[in-house]
Amino acid sequence: MTSFSVIGHTATTDGSFSLNDLPGKAGRMDLISRTVQASLFLSHGIREDVTCTLILLGSPKPGVIIRFDGSAVRSMSPDERNVASFIRMALGIPAGSIFREVAPGISVRRGTLAEILAEKPHAVLDEHGTDIRKAGTDNIPSAFLLSDHQNFTPGEEALMRELPRFSLGPAVLHADHAIVLLLNEIDRRRSEWN
Amino acid sequence: MTSFSVIGHTATTDGSFSLNDLPGKAGRMDLISRTVQASLFLSHGIREDVTCTLILLGSPKPGVIIRFDGSAVRSMSPDERNVASFIRMALGIPAGSIFREVAPGISVRRGTLAEILAEKPHAVLDEHGTDIRKAGTDNIPSAFLLSDHQNFTPGEEALMRELPRFSLGPAVLHADHAIVLLLNEIDRRRSEWN
Repeated sequence: MTSFSVIGHTATTDGSFSLNDLPGKAGRMDLISRTVQASLFLSHGIREDVTCTLILLGSPKPGVIIRFDGSAVRSMSPDERNVASFIRMALGIPAGSIFREVAPGISVRRGTLAEILAEKPHAVLDEHGTDIRKAGTDNIPSAFLLSDHQNFTPGEEALMRELPRFSLGPAVLHADHAIVLLLNEIDRRRSEWN
Repeated sequence: MTSFSVIGHTATTDGSFSLNDLPGKAGRMDLISRTVQASLFLSHGIREDVTCTLILLGSPKPGVIIRFDGSAVRSMSPDERNVASFIRMALGIPAGSIFREVAPGISVRRGTLAEILAEKPHAVLDEHGTDIRKAGTDNIPSAFLLSDHQNFTPGEEALMRELPRFSLGPAVLHADHAIVLLLNEIDRRRSEWN
């Protein structure tokens, strides 16, 4: 099981956002949707052993957690608009501190980054971290925390201080591209492909 | 300079397609848009040394070639809808066999896969190809041909018979994810990062 947790610093928590303006008024929901897509979609298949957990911090009710579980997701397609339509559906459900099902494999609750990090050991990406290709297979974590187009805040960094750090290459990449690279590394290790 | 050429077997060539239904009536234009996005976009930057050339084969006028040149593209954002809006703009321009500019860094003409392959030596992806990580740096090509959600046709395969073949890992991936992996490998080689 591999888990990606993605912070959407500006991603709206208003369940009436327009699917026609994901980058603008919805607060870079295009990028957030692509992180779900990169986590779960193979060509003609779903990664059943991956979850993607969104932590949405935009207004009006910051602190919404939406989890996509590849083992249970049904009838989602990989385009940004379709993924975003499920995020919108999740935001429309009154949620407390316990996960509620939105659709098969998709659930929502209110919560914090600290709670997500307490669920299991996460790693983060850092240009000065260990090259993921050089990490021992036993040291490759099963959960990664990523940020949207903004850097982690000082408060978030404080929660991450003890987490292992990995790097992916010389370029600074979008979170969805980072997920693609991480999954390729995990695919290769699991199958002993290289 | 790195070039990606992407065949959209079903991608519409009707310049009036709806931006609200990229996967359906526009013939998987969502995936085609993501290949442009994966080719050109860094976090907070554009890959100025990459071009992405689309070969659109859907009705009503199959054989439209649209080229995105990272060194000249301006004011394009990475969401599928924005990229698709430029594709739609290109399809609205009467085009002959010579490239016409659609917007900065984006041009359109009519043409064939054979013509694109004649421009420069391409490589293709194949699960039985050489692992890209094990290829000598001098052997990593500067142009790659990819397909959308469909396999190459027998006619396309005939044109590709002599092309070098590379593999990326054990999973069968979407074309946009393959581009992310190829660029990471190229980034690492160029910077001697690993």
